[in-house]
Amino acid sequence: MRVGDRADCLALDAADELGALREEFDLPQRPVFLNGNSLGPPPRATWHRLSKVVREQWRADMNSAWWKHGWLDLPRTVGDRVGRLVGAAPGQTVVGESTSVNLFKLLCAALELNPGRRTVLTDAGNFPSDLYIADGVVRHVRPDVRVRRVEAHALAGALDEDTAVVVLSHVDYRTGELLPMREINRRAHAAGSLVLWDLAHSAGVVPVGLDADGTDLAVGCGYKYLNGGPGAPGYLYVAARLLPRVEQPVTGWLGHAEPFAFEAGYRPADGVGRLLTGCPPLLSLVALEEGVRLAGNVDTRLVRAKSLALTGLFAELAERAGAQVVSPRAPQRRGGHVSVRHPDAERIAKGLAGEGFMAEVRVPDLIRVGLSPLSVRYVDVWDAAAALGRVLTA
Amino acid sequence: MRVGDRADCLALDAADELGALREEFDLPQRPVFLNGNSLGPPPRATWHRLSKVVREQWRADMNSAWWKHGWLDLPRTVGDRVGRLVGAAPGQTVVGESTSVNLFKLLCAALELNPGRRTVLTDAGNFPSDLYIADGVVRHVRPDVRVRRVEAHALAGALDEDTAVVVLSHVDYRTGELLPMREINRRAHAAGSLVLWDLAHSAGVVPVGLDADGTDLAVGCGYKYLNGGPGAPGYLYVAARLLPRVEQPVTGWLGHAEPFAFEAGYRPADGVGRLLTGCPPLLSLVALEEGVRLAGNVDTRLVRAKSLALTGLFAELAERAGAQVVSPRAPQRRGGHVSVRHPDAERIAKGLAGEGFMAEVRVPDLIRVGLSPLSVRYVDVWDAAAALGRVLTA
Repeated sequence: MRVGDRADCLALDAADELGALREEFDLPQRPVFLNGNSLGPPPRATWHRLSKVVREQWRADMNSAWWKHGWLDLPRTVGDRVGRLVGAAPGQTVVGESTSVNLFKLLCAALELNPGRRTVLTDAGNFPSDLYIADGVVRHVRPDVRVRRVEAHALAGALDEDTAVVVLSHVDYRTGELLPMREINRRAHAAGSLVLWDLAHSAGVVPVGLDADGTDLAVGCGYKYLNGGPGAPGYLYVAARLLPRVEQPVTGWLGHAEPFAFEAGYRPADGVGRLLTGCPPLLSLVALEEGVRLAGNVDTRLVRAKSLALTGLFAELAERAGAQVVSPRAPQRRGGHVSVRHPDAERIAKGLAGEGFMAEVRVPDLIRVGLSPLSVRYVDVWDAAAALGRVLTA
Repeated sequence: MRVGDRADCLALDAADELGALREEFDLPQRPVFLNGNSLGPPPRATWHRLSKVVREQWRADMNSAWWKHGWLDLPRTVGDRVGRLVGAAPGQTVVGESTSVNLFKLLCAALELNPGRRTVLTDAGNFPSDLYIADGVVRHVRPDVRVRRVEAHALAGALDEDTAVVVLSHVDYRTGELLPMREINRRAHAAGSLVLWDLAHSAGVVPVGLDADGTDLAVGCGYKYLNGGPGAPGYLYVAARLLPRVEQPVTGWLGHAEPFAFEAGYRPADGVGRLLTGCPPLLSLVALEEGVRLAGNVDTRLVRAKSLALTGLFAELAERAGAQVVSPRAPQRRGGHVSVRHPDAERIAKGLAGEGFMAEVRVPDLIRVGLSPLSVRYVDVWDAAAALGRVLTA
């Protein structure tokens, strides 16, 4: 449908098959959050779950709750829930530790899986923490390896016989550009390289098909479109074909085949559990499960369709209001957020906040507008674009 | 006071200066938990804090809550709170990641701080996850280094000119034996070695003086005597004198001097913040803060006095009941728990549970009885020992 005015947006909201999901979140009337891609809003179920875990399970069963209430299984069961959202069959995904720690573990693992090759290839514009982790691995773990940063468009040409692993974000944290996972996997594999994907800005909003696309390794965070709560534990994925020979360096007890046998030697668990390390932060982990459960109850095609409609509408209205939109307009290249470039980005974001719309600045000059399809309405997009127009001309 | 009967215990409880603290916890009437050294009970304040964080801060401020409500500072401020409990001046302790990940980071750091030396010396009876981590560092990060495991009593004699770092638990997870931190630091330093301590079973129950004892490095977990909740984030300590030159391998964005400047290169934060990595699991982190706050409001000398009284009483009564107590009887060598050896430990623990007392088995043959001085009463000890006597003779 062609959107001509605010009433059209209200009509779209009324007809939105995902509209009812908004009620599953505990949202204030104002402001409107256009930064759900930094931290998703609290699902109502999260609070009930925390209540049960703290006031019933922890209180009544203390340490035995790890077994009695299945807490010890959660890194694997919540991992499988995340897996379903990103096209991974069970047994390849676990949750626990932070995204950066998971990236460290899998990057070290990838270098061991592809011995003899000495280059980590990455996008120069990758999320800084991912770049820092790669540099840390080289500096402190594998001084025989180098990190090569190239612009995203030059990645294919930079693959060579020394490339051990390519480290990429599926969706660019600044521009929202979506990289073609299957195509990149295919090219990297043809060159004898592995690929390690960061799904932080794609899982839960963009269709991800890890198994179908032949992905090797992936990590991601739980607090964005998965609505897992502030600092929610991260997850990691290792393709089943790599599991029998994958090893990671942070060999803590929960990655052991029998953590509570207290054996003297480390014996990795069969399967993806061997990627675990320490005791998971349980309160944050059950909050993540509720967020993922909510996201998992929705048809991802509907989510993608609404996401593209929201971002397309915002990009169009923002340009009409005089903004410079830097995110790709082609749907197949667009993730879940839209960024606007402005030399005075801080002032624009403050102005938007004054109008009741919370967006985020990514230095130096981007205003990033995240439009979580489970909680943002078409009318919010209309109103946000109108507010942007007023702020730009103020 | 000499305890002759149950009434004496009730009198001790009535006179206990720490007795009122029990009300700060949400405890069921039954069972009595003698495994608070595995997971401490929920402080009442934890629930209120979680409510505020989820239903007010997260809901109303979303991502901006990280700044507005000081969430981003918590790894350092909660770290300093933990530091006060373990004799560390501010600026040397941070919280975040799991204990095993923290141990990995500090062990790698220690090896870099002491270049040229190629041996990690550890207690053969150290907590298995700590042994696994040391083996993982050697296997995957520093193949030029070896791990040497010796019995605790042989540690001093095993120090030599190749020892880079000694990795030890302050209190043995099985027997409860307390190692002399100052003496071991002194000997290791004299041999040119660093020492990395695991405080899991001492912080919050045994006086720990990291600064005063000249400690180099330490880690610990938050969910035992700190009452931080299931899987609470771990902490780590680096002595101020080492901070300017310490580096760790897992260089994620929160260890950067300016995480939100999104600089292309990693530039470690000044001070202990450089040991951080990823986004902390906030819900688990605020729960930890409440537990640590509670523990920090108490005079540690009172805690130690009551702990010794409880463990001494239990050991005496258990021996009188025919049990083989393996924990040290000398107060200066005793941590916060007492272990009983029995070839049929599982049956004994089940029997105790049937009597309403939850203790834990550590394979193959130990029943571990943890007596958290903030929540366990003298009368609980009397009743538990009586129950143990009945189970032993059943």
